[in-house]
Amino acid sequence: MGNALATDLYQLTMMQAFWKSGYNPYATFDYFVRSIPLGSYLVVAGLEYVIDYIKRLRFEKSDIEFLAKQGFDEEFLDYLKDFRFTGNVYAMQEGSIAFQKEPIIIVSAPIIEAQLVETYLLNKMNFSTLIATKAARVVYASRNKPVVEFGMRRAHGEGYLEATRAAYIGGCQSTSNVMAGKKFGIPIAGTMAHSFVMSFDSEIDAFRTYAKVYPNKSTFLIDTYNTIDGAENAIKVAKELERHGGRLIAVRIDSGDLLSLSREVRKMLDDAGLDYVKIMASGDLNEWRINDLLEKNAPIDMFGVGTELVTAQPKPALGGIYKLVEISTSNGNVPKMKITNDIAKATLPGRKSVWRIIKDGLFEKDIIALANEKISGVQLLEKVIENGNVLAKKESLNAIRERVQANMRMLPDIYKELDNAPLYPVELSKGLEELSSKIIANRRERTI
Amino acid sequence: MGNALATDLYQLTMMQAFWKSGYNPYATFDYFVRSIPLGSYLVVAGLEYVIDYIKRLRFEKSDIEFLAKQGFDEEFLDYLKDFRFTGNVYAMQEGSIAFQKEPIIIVSAPIIEAQLVETYLLNKMNFSTLIATKAARVVYASRNKPVVEFGMRRAHGEGYLEATRAAYIGGCQSTSNVMAGKKFGIPIAGTMAHSFVMSFDSEIDAFRTYAKVYPNKSTFLIDTYNTIDGAENAIKVAKELERHGGRLIAVRIDSGDLLSLSREVRKMLDDAGLDYVKIMASGDLNEWRINDLLEKNAPIDMFGVGTELVTAQPKPALGGIYKLVEISTSNGNVPKMKITNDIAKATLPGRKSVWRIIKDGLFEKDIIALANEKISGVQLLEKVIENGNVLAKKESLNAIRERVQANMRMLPDIYKELDNAPLYPVELSKGLEELSSKIIANRRERTI
Repeated sequence: MGNALATDLYQLTMMQAFWKSGYNPYATFDYFVRSIPLGSYLVVAGLEYVIDYIKRLRFEKSDIEFLAKQGFDEEFLDYLKDFRFTGNVYAMQEGSIAFQKEPIIIVSAPIIEAQLVETYLLNKMNFSTLIATKAARVVYASRNKPVVEFGMRRAHGEGYLEATRAAYIGGCQSTSNVMAGKKFGIPIAGTMAHSFVMSFDSEIDAFRTYAKVYPNKSTFLIDTYNTIDGAENAIKVAKELERHGGRLIAVRIDSGDLLSLSREVRKMLDDAGLDYVKIMASGDLNEWRINDLLEKNAPIDMFGVGTELVTAQPKPALGGIYKLVEISTSNGNVPKMKITNDIAKATLPGRKSVWRIIKDGLFEKDIIALANEKISGVQLLEKVIENGNVLAKKESLNAIRERVQANMRMLPDIYKELDNAPLYPVELSKGLEELSSKIIANRRERTI
Repeated sequence: MGNALATDLYQLTMMQAFWKSGYNPYATFDYFVRSIPLGSYLVVAGLEYVIDYIKRLRFEKSDIEFLAKQGFDEEFLDYLKDFRFTGNVYAMQEGSIAFQKEPIIIVSAPIIEAQLVETYLLNKMNFSTLIATKAARVVYASRNKPVVEFGMRRAHGEGYLEATRAAYIGGCQSTSNVMAGKKFGIPIAGTMAHSFVMSFDSEIDAFRTYAKVYPNKSTFLIDTYNTIDGAENAIKVAKELERHGGRLIAVRIDSGDLLSLSREVRKMLDDAGLDYVKIMASGDLNEWRINDLLEKNAPIDMFGVGTELVTAQPKPALGGIYKLVEISTSNGNVPKMKITNDIAKATLPGRKSVWRIIKDGLFEKDIIALANEKISGVQLLEKVIENGNVLAKKESLNAIRERVQANMRMLPDIYKELDNAPLYPVELSKGLEELSSKIIANRRERTI
């Protein structure tokens, strides 16, 4: 299945307008996030999809036929038949930490090509970055206790696979999503549903049936009827298992007051000599609830997080944008800057690089500079596509996930606060400041 | 690509537990929404995906191999090789209006089969119904002015196609999503981006270039620099077009105070004799902002809605659930009811039907009844799969969309209020009330 029509119609109408008017300058676009909707940092994810898309970007016969029916010109469609992306792409690695206003991806290509890829790039980067960031918040709140993602049933349709991939990158330990296990090699995990318990005459029958099949791999869901009764039944069956050499792994509590229930159940398990049986909690969890439970020392060993993680509540969209920053014509390079009445919506002109200043092993500040400026720091953007050819090696998800963890350790804790984290310092280089000021001054002098 | 692994791991571990213990009773599950997150009604969507999934449900060789590596038993995997769904499915048609607690889909099958389909069914129904409902709200607020969906860049990854389909079902007139045009035949629409305007030396050059290519199909985006200057440039080019027999379709305003800007631009257009040029508004719109603009008589002819529509803000997840309501064994049918400490989380037992009472062409109330009760009203559930065979004919999207419109006309306006709409009356039949009371009383008498 071709992917070239995975775009907004206006990309194609603009392409045709450029093509028919013979105007196809080399253009540079920045992908960046103006302001971060939740917290102070972003965990970058989604790049693999973008690279794969650009590599495979072709208009198939059926695409051309569809566009012909929509009224596109035959000569333009002939051009599309041999369309290839021939430009350069610079990007932060997946698993990087990024901040407001920093170019995360830079695309330089003939404008017809650079324009086409906008929509898909935004779709992939905005969603994966949104969920990887949310997962990092949840995992941070969980203080290294494992977080299992099980959001498929509430994820946005086919976005569920990307959600699981991004949640794993962000730090989740495993997923309930079997397809993600098969496709991406992400560890999969599962317990049992209320319906399993209800399908038997009694809760203890359900536990016994399950334990017989999984004597060393069972987690019992104990809140189908009454959590304390459920814990008693779980303890009975755990002791039966012990007599046959089995061991119950855990009990799961999916509703009610998780703090008091986990305390009570923990005590019951310990009193029965089942200190090895873990407690898993789930049910409308998010980073704030997990933080609250652990601040009060709830004896919970692992968390199952679904809906709020995969739909990134309460901010379910990342407003990353793709803005024109330079046009190169025979007259040279013209930096472009959007200056509207709304100064907050101004963009930064020109080809750029992003530098990170690290001090004593911690991120101190970032500097956005012009591409030709040299700053002493770590350069965050690397060339991943050159003249249409992919340079970047495909990375394992585990490598990306470990990069996130390494980066999170270098991010000072104050920026990880769930609420009211300060803005991380992102400065503009002298060159970029001067260029911006010059463009603004010029604009004031002339009528558009 | 097989779809059987598009599920939660626990479905498969429960299936194996049922299979190995030789317990596979016929079970009935209800899909329903306990409480509606936004407003008082749901526009049902997603059924086509569910039917298609069930029809094609097979474990492929690579699926079996993957599960073997996860430790599933060989004999169980042998069983999965020939797995087919053999049960019955009853459903409300796509485009129906549903309310809280009503079964929207009922699945009856051997429990191993009924359990497997849960996750995919929830994923598809929850998301499509969420977005179709959101779209109906936005379209209602727009008072029959066209709404164009252009959310792909903020949609949740590959969920973007389902989002567009559901938005169209819910009443949007068209989409920017070209792939959805090709795949589903949804009308596609597009204007131009700020980058197009910025890529030229001046705004008017951009407009002229576009108009030359599209003399009768142009919509100019006029807010790249300053909306009033943009309107002046648009008027100039529209007059030039007129001299060559062309006609500007519309101008689009994507930022700023849409009320005052639309008024000012409308006056400028009218003063220039361009009363046929329409005004399109976009930029972080939702049902409340559109309603506010139109209550103040903003002269806006059409709306472009993206992010908030396709991510269903501020409630980005529909909590539809799939609950066991009956088990049939050799001892007969046993209705099942989840009764926890939390009475709001109780479920309704037994096999059901849903009836709608219509008076004077308007929905008056619904009644949830036991399947064997006869109520005088319209029965909302129909059998769509019988013994694994699909009975339902595939419907056109336009037929589904028209059903929504017909239903919305029959829904009294009070339930369409954007805020504080009352609960629509959903009653339980005498038979269902009695069954529920009996089960609760029995539960109280015995220890679980």
